[in-house]
This record gives sequence, C-alpha cells and structure tokens, in this order.
Amino acid sequence: MTGAADRLWCPLCLLPSGWAEGVLLDVDDTGTIRRIETGAPAAANTQLPGAVIPGMPNLHSHAFQRAMAGLTERSGGEERSDFWSWRRTMYSFVGRLTPEQVEAIAAHLYVEMLKAGYTGVAEFHYLHNPPGGGRYSDPAELARRVAAGAEAAGIRLTLLPVLYREGGFGGGPLAPAQQRFRLEVDEWAGIVAALAGASPTRTAGAALHSLRAVLPADMADALAAYDAICPEGPVHIHIAEQEKEVAECRAWSGLRPVEWLLDGVPVDRRWTLVHATHMTEEETRRAAASGAVAGLCPTTEANLGDGVFALPGWLAAGGAFGVGSDSNVSLDPREELRWLEYAQRLVLKRRLVAGDAAPPHALGAALWLGAAAGGARAMGQACGAIAENEAADLLVLDTEHPTLAGHGPDTLLDAWVFTNAGSALREVRVAGRRVVEDGHHPGEDAIRARYRETMTELVQEL
Amino acid sequence: MTGAADRLWCPLCLLPSGWAEGVLLDVDDTGTIRRIETGAPAAANTQLPGAVIPGMPNLHSHAFQRAMAGLTERSGGEERSDFWSWRRTMYSFVGRLTPEQVEAIAAHLYVEMLKAGYTGVAEFHYLHNPPGGGRYSDPAELARRVAAGAEAAGIRLTLLPVLYREGGFGGGPLAPAQQRFRLEVDEWAGIVAALAGASPTRTAGAALHSLRAVLPADMADALAAYDAICPEGPVHIHIAEQEKEVAECRAWSGLRPVEWLLDGVPVDRRWTLVHATHMTEEETRRAAASGAVAGLCPTTEANLGDGVFALPGWLAAGGAFGVGSDSNVSLDPREELRWLEYAQRLVLKRRLVAGDAAPPHALGAALWLGAAAGGARAMGQACGAIAENEAADLLVLDTEHPTLAGHGPDTLLDAWVFTNAGSALREVRVAGRRVVEDGHHPGEDAIRARYRETMTELVQEL
Repeated sequence: MTGAADRLWCPLCLLPSGWAEGVLLDVDDTGTIRRIETGAPAAANTQLPGAVIPGMPNLHSHAFQRAMAGLTERSGGEERSDFWSWRRTMYSFVGRLTPEQVEAIAAHLYVEMLKAGYTGVAEFHYLHNPPGGGRYSDPAELARRVAAGAEAAGIRLTLLPVLYREGGFGGGPLAPAQQRFRLEVDEWAGIVAALAGASPTRTAGAALHSLRAVLPADMADALAAYDAICPEGPVHIHIAEQEKEVAECRAWSGLRPVEWLLDGVPVDRRWTLVHATHMTEEETRRAAASGAVAGLCPTTEANLGDGVFALPGWLAAGGAFGVGSDSNVSLDPREELRWLEYAQRLVLKRRLVAGDAAPPHALGAALWLGAAAGGARAMGQACGAIAENEAADLLVLDTEHPTLAGHGPDTLLDAWVFTNAGSALREVRVAGRRVVEDGHHPGEDAIRARYRETMTELVQEL
Repeated sequence: MTGAADRLWCPLCLLPSGWAEGVLLDVDDTGTIRRIETGAPAAANTQLPGAVIPGMPNLHSHAFQRAMAGLTERSGGEERSDFWSWRRTMYSFVGRLTPEQVEAIAAHLYVEMLKAGYTGVAEFHYLHNPPGGGRYSDPAELARRVAAGAEAAGIRLTLLPVLYREGGFGGGPLAPAQQRFRLEVDEWAGIVAALAGASPTRTAGAALHSLRAVLPADMADALAAYDAICPEGPVHIHIAEQEKEVAECRAWSGLRPVEWLLDGVPVDRRWTLVHATHMTEEETRRAAASGAVAGLCPTTEANLGDGVFALPGWLAAGGAFGVGSDSNVSLDPREELRWLEYAQRLVLKRRLVAGDAAPPHALGAALWLGAAAGGARAMGQACGAIAENEAADLLVLDTEHPTLAGHGPDTLLDAWVFTNAGSALREVRVAGRRVVEDGHHPGEDAIRARYRETMTELVQEL
C-alpha cells in the first residue's frame, strides 16, 4: 500500500507546537505531508470531521502472543507464578503455530490496533523456523506472513527480525521450543534485507533479542551486517526487564545489563531499549543521554510483574520514550499512557508525574506527543507528528462525543487519554488513506472469521 | 422501575459454583431469580444469546465528578500536584453545580456504567445544599436528582446520603465549598428515610464521609438514627486513603484511622471501608475479620496517587472486596479488576497475586465473582450472584467475539477481564429487564444531548 495524494482539511489539529485551527494538509502519493497551512478555510477539500491528532506508533509487539491473551491468568501448578512461568506457557504455545495461523493472528491484531488508534507497529519478530527447528524453504516465510497481515490490515509496519542464538548469558544450549527462534547471523541479515524498504509504509529494521540470547561477537557481526543494509535503521533490544536477568548479567560480566550495553556497544538515537525497567540512577542518566528511546510497555510489564520504570529520572535527563503493546493482552495506547503515569503516581504518591517534566502541554497532550515522537523514532519512519515531511498517519476525534464535549484544546487530550472516550475515535488514517471509519475496518469480517477459526484450533490443542 | 417476570434461558451461565450449561432462570415481577434449572433445553423462553455472568455492582461513585474527568490532569501552578490539590479543583467545581446539572450528569454516567457492565451503583452522595450553604426547600433535592438519573438510566441504585460536618479531625470549620455538604444529623437521617425502600431496585443507605468530617458523638447519633430506619442497611466510610490523613488521625487520637474505627465503632458485615489503602498488617487482619467489605477503586486511587492496597494480606485473612469507579475518570469494571491485580504484580514482582488466594476459579472468574458478591453486600441488595433469591442483574457475553473465540469456560473470564474484549458485551439486564443491547441504550440520545449541554456550560464557566 502506498499513500493517497489528497488535500485534507480539519477544524482543529494538534501540531508539535500545539493546537491550530483550520488546518490544511497537503499529502503526496507516498502518504507524506508536504505542506501545512493553518487558518485555512474548508473549501473543497477532504474534510476530517473532528480534532486531528497524530496516530500512535506501537513500538513493541509480539503479534502471535495476541492469541495467548487470557490463557495465562491461571496457575500451571507452579509454586510461584512469574515472568518465567509465563514464558514456559508461551513456549508451549509457540511450538504449534503454523504460518497460516501466524498471518491470521497478525492481520486480526493489526486491525484491532488500528481501531484503538495505533497507526504503525514495530513488530519484534522472533519466530522464524518450523516447529522443532530446521528452516522453511524461504527463511523469511514467517516474517512475510506478519508483513502480509500488516498489508491486509493497512497498518504501517517496521518488521524487526530478531537475532536469537543462545540460552543464557555467555552462551548456552537452547530449549527445544527456542529452536524456532535461532538463526545464523547471515540468515538473519538476509531476512532484514529481504523486507527492508518494501514500500513507503512497510520496511524492516534490526532486533537483538537480549544480552542473554546474543553473544557480544554475534552482536558485533549483526550490527556490521545491518549497517550495510540500513545505515540509519533502528536497532531494538529487550533489556533489564527482570531482576533475575540483572543478577545473571552481573554474574556473567560484573555489569548490569544497561551498563554492559552502554559500555560495550555504540548506543545512540537509532536504539530502542525495550523495558529498561531495572536501572540505577546512573544507568538512567547515561541511557537517556545516549539518545536511545525507552520502549515502555506498561500493560504487559504489569501483567508480567516486571516492576515500575523510573520515569521521572528518565524525563529529567531528557530521555525519549514511546509505548508498545508487547504481549498484546491490552490493545489501547490510552491505557498504556494512562497507566505509565498511574504506576508512577501509585509509587510516588503524587499526581502529574510526567507532567512535571513536560510543560507547556497539559499531561494528556504531552504524553501523547512524546510517545508518538519516540515511537516513530523507534520505527525508523517519519510518522510521529503532524508536520511537513512526516507521514499523514492521523486520528480524528469526535469533539461532540459526550466525554470530549465542552473540552477545549487545553484539556481535550486529557479527556481522551484519561477517560473512557475510546468510542470518540471517528477515523483512522495511515499515509493519508482511511483505514477505520466509525469503529469499522472494511476488511474486518473476513479477518475476524479467519482469526476465530485460528483461535478455535489453538485453544483446542492446549 | 420494577422487574419483568420472565423465564430466561442461556447456553452457558456462571453460577457461584462455577459454569453450568443450559440454564433456565425463573424471574419474578420484582426482578428476582426464584428458581434455577441447569441442563435445561431452550424451549420457548427468552433466549440470552451467549455466556451469562452476574452484572457488576459498582460500590463507590461520586456521580458529579464524572464531569471533572480530564479537567484535573494539568498543574494548577501548585508546587506539588497530589490528592489535596485535586480536591481544591473539585471544590471549585462543586461550587457551581445546579440540580438540573447534577441530574443530567448522573443519568449520563449511569448509562455509561450500564454499557460497561455495571448493573448497580452505590452512590456516595455528599452534595446536599445550594452553593454557599442554606437548604433547598426539599433537603433531599439533590439526592432525588441523582435517583432520577438512575431511574432514567435503569441502573440499580443504593443512594448513600453522606454525613459531612467538620473540616478536620476533632472538628473544625468548613471551607466555603464544603457548605454544600453539611447537614444536621436529623436532616441527614430524613434524607435517608425519604429514599430508603423506594422500589425493588432503588433504595438508600448510610455514609459517614470520613473520620475527619464526622465527630465520634455525631457518628454514634447517626448510626442510632440509621438503625431505626434500616436495621440491616449498609454503612460506608472513606478511610485511610492518604498518608497525611493517617498522620492527622494519629495526632488527634493516637490511633491510625482503621485502628480508631475498629476500636470505637461496632464494624461488621454491614460496613464498607472505602479505600483502606494505608493499613498495618494488624489493621488488615482485624478489618478483614470484622466482615467489612474493602471498597477498592483502583483507577481513582491511581489517578490520585493514593498508594497500593495490601490485597494479599486482605484475601489471606478472608476479607471481602468489591470495586468502585469513585471519581468516574475510568468506567469499566474490567479495568478496575485488571489493575487491582496489576498494581500488586508491579509491587510484588510476581503474577496471579489474587489468584493465589482464590482457587478453584481461574483468576478472571475469581476476581469477577468476588467483586460482584462484595459489591452487592456493599449495596445492601441481593444482586451479587446468579442464584435463587438474587436479582436477575445479568451480562450476556458474545462467545463468538474474536477475543473470546476458542475460550472455554475455564478461561472465558480471563479473556474478558484481561484483554480488550469490551465490545463482547451483547446485553445488560437489570432485574431481568434489558437495558443495553449491542452497546446501545434506548434512552441514550436524549440523555447524551443533555449531558453535552451540561458539559459545555460547566467547562465554559471554569
């Protein structure tokens, strides 16, 4: 899919500098905004019926985990339910997925994302091989299935094939389920190259699973290969999600994970540190100063009992952030942003925590604009603001919706983010093209039917 | 409104003992279930098209605060944003509300509650007087307005007129805004008596605002007067929400708030302790053993930065709980239950915290059934389970919805509570009568229009 050249007009629009009235967006045939005029009359353009804000890039998703949502909230008989027992369930699930199922889940998930206001997704894709290991005849088979799901839904995609090679810090054998994840570095680079630059709305980038799954030498080889493919492309890594991981990293290297990464690798604005939950103040300052984006996934981090990210220190150090739906148990950028802030309030016992660091916008707009800008950087695409040379990825909010009624620009996004105003989302556009209208996606009936069949197959096998 | 005598049949139904198939509910003309048959054929009864679960009683609401949602997420220029600065904003809002506005807000809020799966509400109603003080010609004027809103929406109501008399622990003058709250004890009892037992779905109970707003002697008088009106009726109190409140209570009495209450008042199963966030282990054990319901309001407690309730200790001591939407910034029993559990996970860094204490159900069903039973007790109405002599307050979930597809009874409510399956709610019934069908309420257009006008008036005055 490419964009649709168009002239879009809206009565109210959230630009990086704040709200503007009577805004005309000239969009070219790649879906990029080429010119913005404010104070413009409606005239004979395509009218966007409400307040227009940037669509939210979702910077971290494992699409197939959507199908596990609701299946891991009961004890497997273990003494202690935690991230690691959840991971065992996930591995047993991973052992069965077919390529057709992967595509059906991704297509449905991405329609749900669009309907919730996510206009793009960075898919951290680690499922590469057939069950038990070996290779598909095309090693990019499953990556292409995810991309086909994105194509069917019409969501912007940065597919991040994941390098996953080891069973622990310093190297170690993989469990049987992990055989689906393992690639040689050159195979991994081949998948990245096969999908990079596919279209103006679908490309690829790099992901290193974690310090426990990639040895330093492989990491160096992978980054060198990637630089030859995408010299400016994004690099993602899971880091410091669990305290046990921090302890194991220290036992291996004498350093904490973020400390090791900052010492050992040239982390810069291309990088997204996913989770980064467990950092010292010094790590927080250094990581924020590196320019890396913090990839925060509040609903999944809460579901998995990870802990609370140190947001005030990160923002005070000028750190960039974005949000991801990660395990896809919840699919709503508003829930992610609200609970990013709320978890801080619960711990610190005060209000407006992110707001303290983010004038001049009110908190809702500050969180939304910050996460959109950071998320776009994490995707490596210009899709994080309503500005010239940025994509026309847009949400249209119904200002007549009762939950937004009466709110002027000062508080409109506070009402949007902090209340149950989800049904105020009238239109979703990706690269200028309308993909959701009044809660409906044109392809959803067929996509839902395939997803329903897939879920029935998967749950029956459990 | 009373109920509609009917025979309701559903393919799958969540009884207190677990899921049953082919369930026939005989409902009488008060909306009460008189007989339940399982394994019954559909025959010529009213068919409920999906999985039926109890509707959720909302045990704590301040209706008018719905209109403030989204207006308090920006700094008022104070050095520190917290509960107390939020309260100042709320007081300035309270100073202006007219009776017509109170009714319009309540009607709209209650429709939204029904659409989210709340079938009843305990309204903690402290707005009694005209702006600045004095009395309406009928001192129950605003209470009747809230009840009229409930009538228009068709939600079950326990209206809790609130006794509020003092500006601090040990007594003290009220701020000007608080003059709208103050009643003599006999006036307060008169409002309770005027609204108690109005219909099978609308009644009244007692609320004491807090230890800082009611002196011990007034509390004793109020409870004595209340016992003469409703000898079995519920009693609610805000308690131990804020650390500052704990410190002030200790300075006044030498005791912590929950400690003072348990020592000074015969707390029993009629009582609901709203918040009870700050308790010692000893207070937790004693309060749970008293039989009181913990009135937990996770989204508001997070929004206000209150802190995290000690759920594991409460459940281990056999404590009852329910959930409330309180300030009504979020309106979704699923978000309340999910984040009740998630806040625990974030603090304890493990999963299935409430689940550890609540076999044999999976976590979603355990949380739902527990909160429904506790919430019904807090309302003082038999509306917390699908059982004989309980109200037919029912939700019908669409098991073909993609988020529930494939899930059997074991995990259906895990998917309902933990994922974004909100649109799976096909029908909502109160006292057997259908009030929401496929997301629509028959009166919503008129109710929305009035609410929209009210919001426009209120926000313009800010």
